[in-house]
Amino acid sequence: MSDNAKDFTQASASNPSTLAEPSSVIINKSAHEFDKTLFDSLLSRRFFFAPSFEIYGGCAGFFDYGPPGSALQANILEVWRKHFIIEEDMLELDTTIMTLSDVLKTSGHVDKFTDWMVKDVVNGEIFRADHLVEAVLESRLKGDKEARGQAAAPPAAEDDKKKKKKKVVKSTAVKMEDSVVKEYEFMLAQIDNYTGAELGEIIKKHNIVNPETGNQLSTPVEFNLMFQSEIGPTGHVKGYLRPETAQGHFINFQRLLEFNNGRVPFASAQIGRSFRNEISPRQGLLRVREFTMAEIEHYVDPKDKSHPRFVDTKDVVLQLLPKDVQERGETTMTNMTVGDAVGQKIVDNETLGYFLGRVQLFLEKIGIDPKKLRCRQHMGNEMAHYASDCWDFEIQSSYGWIECVGCADRSAYDLTVHSNKTKQKLVVKENLTEPNVYQKLDIQLEAKPFGMKFKKDAKSIEAVIRGYTQEQLAQVKAELEEKKETTVKLEGGAEHVVTDDLIKIQEITVSEHIREYTPNVIEPSFGIGRILYSLLEHSYWARESDVARGVLSLPPVVAPIKCLIVPLSANSDFVPLINEICKPRFDSMSAKLRRAGVASRVDASGASIGKRYARNDELGTPYGCTIDFASVANGTLTLRERDTTDQLIGKIEDVIAVTVALCNGQMEWKDACEKLEKYSGTQEVE
Amino acid sequence: MSDNAKDFTQASASNPSTLAEPSSVIINKSAHEFDKTLFDSLLSRRFFFAPSFEIYGGCAGFFDYGPPGSALQANILEVWRKHFIIEEDMLELDTTIMTLSDVLKTSGHVDKFTDWMVKDVVNGEIFRADHLVEAVLESRLKGDKEARGQAAAPPAAEDDKKKKKKKVVKSTAVKMEDSVVKEYEFMLAQIDNYTGAELGEIIKKHNIVNPETGNQLSTPVEFNLMFQSEIGPTGHVKGYLRPETAQGHFINFQRLLEFNNGRVPFASAQIGRSFRNEISPRQGLLRVREFTMAEIEHYVDPKDKSHPRFVDTKDVVLQLLPKDVQERGETTMTNMTVGDAVGQKIVDNETLGYFLGRVQLFLEKIGIDPKKLRCRQHMGNEMAHYASDCWDFEIQSSYGWIECVGCADRSAYDLTVHSNKTKQKLVVKENLTEPNVYQKLDIQLEAKPFGMKFKKDAKSIEAVIRGYTQEQLAQVKAELEEKKETTVKLEGGAEHVVTDDLIKIQEITVSEHIREYTPNVIEPSFGIGRILYSLLEHSYWARESDVARGVLSLPPVVAPIKCLIVPLSANSDFVPLINEICKPRFDSMSAKLRRAGVASRVDASGASIGKRYARNDELGTPYGCTIDFASVANGTLTLRERDTTDQLIGKIEDVIAVTVALCNGQMEWKDACEKLEKYSGTQEVE
Repeated sequence: MSDNAKDFTQASASNPSTLAEPSSVIINKSAHEFDKTLFDSLLSRRFFFAPSFEIYGGCAGFFDYGPPGSALQANILEVWRKHFIIEEDMLELDTTIMTLSDVLKTSGHVDKFTDWMVKDVVNGEIFRADHLVEAVLESRLKGDKEARGQAAAPPAAEDDKKKKKKKVVKSTAVKMEDSVVKEYEFMLAQIDNYTGAELGEIIKKHNIVNPETGNQLSTPVEFNLMFQSEIGPTGHVKGYLRPETAQGHFINFQRLLEFNNGRVPFASAQIGRSFRNEISPRQGLLRVREFTMAEIEHYVDPKDKSHPRFVDTKDVVLQLLPKDVQERGETTMTNMTVGDAVGQKIVDNETLGYFLGRVQLFLEKIGIDPKKLRCRQHMGNEMAHYASDCWDFEIQSSYGWIECVGCADRSAYDLTVHSNKTKQKLVVKENLTEPNVYQKLDIQLEAKPFGMKFKKDAKSIEAVIRGYTQEQLAQVKAELEEKKETTVKLEGGAEHVVTDDLIKIQEITVSEHIREYTPNVIEPSFGIGRILYSLLEHSYWARESDVARGVLSLPPVVAPIKCLIVPLSANSDFVPLINEICKPRFDSMSAKLRRAGVASRVDASGASIGKRYARNDELGTPYGCTIDFASVANGTLTLRERDTTDQLIGKIEDVIAVTVALCNGQMEWKDACEKLEKYSGTQEVE
Repeated sequence: MSDNAKDFTQASASNPSTLAEPSSVIINKSAHEFDKTLFDSLLSRRFFFAPSFEIYGGCAGFFDYGPPGSALQANILEVWRKHFIIEEDMLELDTTIMTLSDVLKTSGHVDKFTDWMVKDVVNGEIFRADHLVEAVLESRLKGDKEARGQAAAPPAAEDDKKKKKKKVVKSTAVKMEDSVVKEYEFMLAQIDNYTGAELGEIIKKHNIVNPETGNQLSTPVEFNLMFQSEIGPTGHVKGYLRPETAQGHFINFQRLLEFNNGRVPFASAQIGRSFRNEISPRQGLLRVREFTMAEIEHYVDPKDKSHPRFVDTKDVVLQLLPKDVQERGETTMTNMTVGDAVGQKIVDNETLGYFLGRVQLFLEKIGIDPKKLRCRQHMGNEMAHYASDCWDFEIQSSYGWIECVGCADRSAYDLTVHSNKTKQKLVVKENLTEPNVYQKLDIQLEAKPFGMKFKKDAKSIEAVIRGYTQEQLAQVKAELEEKKETTVKLEGGAEHVVTDDLIKIQEITVSEHIREYTPNVIEPSFGIGRILYSLLEHSYWARESDVARGVLSLPPVVAPIKCLIVPLSANSDFVPLINEICKPRFDSMSAKLRRAGVASRVDASGASIGKRYARNDELGTPYGCTIDFASVANGTLTLRERDTTDQLIGKIEDVIAVTVALCNGQMEWKDACEKLEKYSGTQEVE
């Protein structure tokens, strides 16, 4: 099915004049201007999703999924679970959303998961400071260009998505000094790197005000993006709603490792809700305060990041946008296999490459258009300081290129900080077949005389000595050999001389049979709502005959409803057959379809058959079974395919069997055309 | 599979002496004393679930599900989704957890979703007031009985579950006055009905203190069980984490109805996380602060609560505990079909009966022991004032009978309050085939002279008149006929005389073509964690040969892993075959199993085969495929069944095919025994 949809795209892309063709020809959206208004209207009218608490006036950043949206999401997650958790034998987790503040303090979220906000000092309107500064500076540059009579070309390598994030500010044609223009351009290039204080200075120096009111703005204030609450009745236990599921994996690492019989590599995976209290969300499903994520944490030996299944994905082709290209200010993408990308060290290691390939396959499987999918590497200053490589799968929609899946090598950072904080070991113990034999300097103290000499200070002095590194010990050894004594400085500053009768430093041979290490973590992290929204845009087009009504060419595997069952009319001759096929009993055919896992719906409403089909085209329902006069006379059903509107006819049982096979992915439409006859009866009225 | 497990239960229940039989015989927990310590140890050791933030010291009421727990939960939810949403064509929803405070104010949760708490005035320990009072009174009654030399029989009709909720208080043998005993018994019978002030009086009058410290307790304070937070940066928008998913359905009712083409009955369904900030949770998975629910809201015409599929469930047998039995102080259960229960008006209506049957079937399908499942009706004082009937599915575990699914008829309450608050219509419009024709009294005012006469009061007077009921209008009509005038009282108390030249009341004929009504809501609501925990207890038993290790007889449909693949040893002769079957590539057999939706795991660890089987018995893995010497020589596999430990042998392809069929529920073990040969080779070493 998705192949069909892709063929249409290609056909119309290569022939934009299809607009002028007869109305039976399918018109893809790439030939038309994508009409966001009509598209949004479809999503709302068919209740894919709608603002939460709508009858109470709504609240920005919250959306409820209606029946087709929920089913689409559930189906995407089901594919995800099979593609990753089941097929790759990952360890599934389901940890709490409410998270003890200590955990998120350690992970750095309490201190660093913030944005800077400014307030209109008169009306109290709140803005995200960086977004506002960026919007105002860009509008002034645009105004300057207009005043200079230049076309406002998009700055090279500008990230499309940023345009959409911020409040749009109208430009006025005002020419500025050349030096000011330069300063503005410099600031814009640095915009992600400014601290709150620096943003405040820029606002002051460049007289940035609320573009709507002209009112002054407050000093930038840090705003933590986590929702906070209190656990239990005491008021003393603070909790946050998790901003990602990842920390729930990390703090359970030791139990997961044990479950995996102590072996790495392995991966944990979790699907769940996370929360970010965005300052001022404005982009529909792409920037929300509550969202469903699916995250994988793959634990790997830092010395060996190969992957046993690498060969299975090495031929997957990715559309890459590596960091060096971006750093040259370009956005040219390269098609390259995973194998080549890893071989040429563009992607850091096999495991990361393996996951890039698997993610690409997953996104294609659910119906994302591969031409609107790219794999963008983070530039040096974009990455967290601990990350060794990071790639985002960005999907192109009417909002630009939006990050939908992040694939980062988080190194040993998270496990290390939680382990340090809790004093719990979060490490892998590897039995070495060959013991690791090496020389090291060892300290021997003469405990009794040492204690008698230093009395109350003895313990502190010993602690300092025991804390020496091997390099320091080598120095002490040399000192003792030369001067027969060494000086130990305590934390307070006090110094004590230790003579060589009390301390010996000797080289010894160590033979280790167990290697203990903190694994590195490679994390593919999926924003399900963003993927779902992008998929809806990619699936949307309209027939020439009825542009106001859309079609969603969702692949059967994710389509909310797989099969529509329509009685041609409510004519009394049909009643016995309608009963047999549609009656709301468990022994009817529609019930059997549903029990075979094929979500079907009967539409016996009074609307014309064309309207009923159109309604289901908008829901993305790939197949329709029609009960008509021939059904009554000959026991046949017709089967309609959504994208082509082609119809086949056959015995009821055969049509049902073909439908099940089509929906379960065991058959394609071209195979169905061989199994059943082409329907040459009355054409449906569109 | 579940049939097998049930057979064991019956066998050992009828023959408790199985304990003395040879060690190969399977011993069910009903023959043994259920060992909660061993059971809990299994759940923790195998990471079914564990306290959240464990390495940070944990936090009461929060649990993380590990790999087998998550997979078990995901499988239960998958069955739920197929059994209800897909098979019954329900409208799935996915609404936000974070809920605008206005919504929960209207639903009554902000004001009424509270418990009373008291504090130890010295050490600050917090108790739920009703639980503490109940525990102390009961312990004193017990002490009294002991002093009187009576056995402390459980009070009739006492709800087992209550015993577990509260802090256990030790009793001391102290005799009390007969009148005091009576007073205590009266208070205990009323315990759920006391207000906070009344609880405070009882605490004072009966000198109830913290049983551990003897310290005085504070006055009861109301504590709202919802987690509160703030939305956005202003601090003015209050939100709560939803305590149930139901309100998300109700506020979307109009969109749902429209999606269903304006027709009732239909149902919406949602699976999701909810939160209750319990004062002092102590019962493991049965009382938690964050939990997964699955809720159905079925909208039905209040005048017609029949159900089109009723015949499909009318023969389902329920174990009923109706309210009249409980009100007589008894707990005798009756086995009765859904059809009889509705026919005899024990269950209020067909739709409610239908859902009781469907819930029963669902719980049996996932492996709940029907003998430990009862359907208890709420007594009059237990039900919400608006509910017309309510039944709880209670499952018996070591904690007593615990409510796991509630089925309530919520009437039109929720839709009505939201509609009143938002002024949005939440109603069904029914086109009447026969118009509804009736007589009614109609008011005619002479607008101009009326306005001139009453001037500024005209509008208020008219509003009062227009607000009259038909009965009041009939009175006014009579008055006008008799006295030629009527007196209208305004809200402030002012009276105005309206003469019959200004007002006429006439009988007119109304013909309505549309009936508008607020549907009633029947709600089955599932606590997934409680069901999951009960299922684990019901599935648990131990083999005579190794009591310390348990077996979980989970049905294949919900088992976390369906099939274990075990190479007998790491002998180099096995390597090629192991590679073919187990290698972590997508073309191996284990991968094919997984791709057929059969979650499988390879255990090639060094542990003995017996240990590896035992490990997977503890995980509830129903089948094991063993690669042994015969596999290498003859291309065969053996297939082991978990509960009987019986083994079959066959060609590799055949064994794989049988395993897939067994796991997908297309075959039972007895059929497998006919397809494959009994394995008579070396017996596995347990």
